[in-house]
Amino acid sequence: MDQSDLKAPTWQLSERARKLTSSAIREILKVTERPEVISFAGGLPSPATFPAERMREASDRILRDTPAAALQYSATEGYAPLREWIAQRYSVNGAQIRASQVLITTGSQQALDLLGKVLVCPNSPVLVETPTYLGALQSFSMYEPSYVQVATDEQGLIPEALTAELTKGARLLYAQPNFQNPTGRRLPIERRRALAEFAKTAPFPVIEDDPYGALDYAGEPLPTMLSMAPEHIVYLGSFSKVLAPGLRVGFIIAPEELIFKLVQAKQATDLHTPSFTQRIVHEVIKDGFLDTHVPTIRELYRNQCDAMLSALERNMPAGVSWNRPEGGMFIWVNLPAQIDSMKLLEEAVAQNVAFVPGGPFFANEAQHNTLRLSFVTVPPAKIDEGIGRLGALIRAKL
Amino acid sequence: MDQSDLKAPTWQLSERARKLTSSAIREILKVTERPEVISFAGGLPSPATFPAERMREASDRILRDTPAAALQYSATEGYAPLREWIAQRYSVNGAQIRASQVLITTGSQQALDLLGKVLVCPNSPVLVETPTYLGALQSFSMYEPSYVQVATDEQGLIPEALTAELTKGARLLYAQPNFQNPTGRRLPIERRRALAEFAKTAPFPVIEDDPYGALDYAGEPLPTMLSMAPEHIVYLGSFSKVLAPGLRVGFIIAPEELIFKLVQAKQATDLHTPSFTQRIVHEVIKDGFLDTHVPTIRELYRNQCDAMLSALERNMPAGVSWNRPEGGMFIWVNLPAQIDSMKLLEEAVAQNVAFVPGGPFFANEAQHNTLRLSFVTVPPAKIDEGIGRLGALIRAKL
Repeated sequence: MDQSDLKAPTWQLSERARKLTSSAIREILKVTERPEVISFAGGLPSPATFPAERMREASDRILRDTPAAALQYSATEGYAPLREWIAQRYSVNGAQIRASQVLITTGSQQALDLLGKVLVCPNSPVLVETPTYLGALQSFSMYEPSYVQVATDEQGLIPEALTAELTKGARLLYAQPNFQNPTGRRLPIERRRALAEFAKTAPFPVIEDDPYGALDYAGEPLPTMLSMAPEHIVYLGSFSKVLAPGLRVGFIIAPEELIFKLVQAKQATDLHTPSFTQRIVHEVIKDGFLDTHVPTIRELYRNQCDAMLSALERNMPAGVSWNRPEGGMFIWVNLPAQIDSMKLLEEAVAQNVAFVPGGPFFANEAQHNTLRLSFVTVPPAKIDEGIGRLGALIRAKL
Repeated sequence: MDQSDLKAPTWQLSERARKLTSSAIREILKVTERPEVISFAGGLPSPATFPAERMREASDRILRDTPAAALQYSATEGYAPLREWIAQRYSVNGAQIRASQVLITTGSQQALDLLGKVLVCPNSPVLVETPTYLGALQSFSMYEPSYVQVATDEQGLIPEALTAELTKGARLLYAQPNFQNPTGRRLPIERRRALAEFAKTAPFPVIEDDPYGALDYAGEPLPTMLSMAPEHIVYLGSFSKVLAPGLRVGFIIAPEELIFKLVQAKQATDLHTPSFTQRIVHEVIKDGFLDTHVPTIRELYRNQCDAMLSALERNMPAGVSWNRPEGGMFIWVNLPAQIDSMKLLEEAVAQNVAFVPGGPFFANEAQHNTLRLSFVTVPPAKIDEGIGRLGALIRAKL
């Protein structure tokens, strides 16, 4: 939208709305909808993994057998059998999760909004990884926190960095331990234990956001922090990456005290997540479908990841480095310090290749020589072609 | 939930969350789920009106023909053909609504949340009717406004009450001109014109919330304020009362400047409304279905309303008054001044009858001798029985 075409709004906006600005990246990335563009920018799962036929059967059964309930208003907390299923699924390694600890959300993006609503005041400190998930920054920013970055290394968040000084007054710590968006990093088990121990005494919740947990290529998931400290971790889950994102069904697992407040906040926000989509999710998964379905997604994504890693090895000049993800959808690239990935994006788009610059994933002090590559939706031959063009562009700058 | 069972939360909550308290009414009304209770409390549409078979066919076609798009992430603004349909539908009486003025929301409750997010700061004045929709108070209250009540009479909001003094510094005026929840009142055309004129020069938007507009029993809708001042009114619509609420599909029509900010706020809130439910709505309505379907809802509700009006006439003692709605789902009852409807509710529930006390619908200075009756889901014989018991309870207090 070209703002110059618009009459100036004469209505006074809230402080938080005045801070919202049009994203330069979003404007550039609009061109990636052109079919000739090879886009590594999207965070979209592959539609090849959507179990459309199963969903069609499930929708049909639901609207045949229970139309009045599936189409009526329903409880803010969510569809009871789905809450039960989630509670059972996460009662592992000795942890006991109760259905009363589960709130169904309109995608896990809504979980972030509700947590911001219930926990964050203007200028209150919020602890995030360096870098962190851009969508979480967008949600929390509506409640005007003061971000504090927690140091990370190749293995993710460094628990020792959580000193009393750094964490003073914090309202929450937000982390993605599995195949983080944007870095693809997985937090090792020792660090998970250390963070879970930290959560047990911290005067604020540790948020374990886990949309990609099921997507570990070896099928050997690490235990969640939730399982280590079930009364002290706020866990966010999603069906977007294992079923389909267009249904917008996610969930929060938290102590009942917090769920109680989150339910009130959700009631004021959208009353409840659509009754019909919640029932579709439950109908599709209730008989163990994910146990056979998720391995097929893992295999697809592992092959896609391998294709991109091998393209990077063939095409990137010395001085460019990247990680080898053990799961998920993303690779994080470090460029030589003098290259600004935002400027690189403009040149890349001119050559019909796209990615997301790393800068916006930092709450403060961005590292502009970084970028995120998504590999799951591009065919391997196109991955090679796109990475080839990108490598040539970078080489020309050295 | 019994709060005494819970460990005290040790996490610090936001100011807005600390203000959230458990609703006494909600606790009392929980018993209305018992089948022996005759409940006039719910705001639920009648499930007899849900076009379940059409939705089943629509779901089937969508998941057969366009599964990848229906199950994938989609634009925050909403499904383009649905936005187009809405823009055309509201381009009447000379008003031209553009699809770019339409944002699809996760129910129209979300529209209220987004407007609060984008327009309201702590302590900023928000103008509301006396009484007003409780759900709007819940949404706006998350952004901590200072409410200012606008005077009303039997015909609804009184435009002359909107003096410069009363409206000073206001961020928005919120009104439901059609069959208002809770009073069932319809704003006359002269007042609509006056309010639309007011909107043209006001330094804040007039919000026209219209979930019940299609439900006028005579099938003679009054023109919307949107049609009178399309660049100055923010209009909220919903498919909850004409199709089904469990899909959670509503919309905002507003000037593009505001839509631009609302889209950014929505992206941070739930990314987008489910792709699948939006497509179901469009698939069901695109060929004119509402033109034949809505009259059947009107007829059902008119008959239900007549049954309740006649039960009230037969059973209520002198000193009790109520309105005769021209549409919608609610009747508003004024009791003699000495009767507190909250205490009456406790006694009524003990006799298996329920309603919603009027107090919570007032932003300030509640009139406690009022109550809201919903008539759409109770069979006429039960309406008579329930109103009979209620009348006897009130008579005993006089």
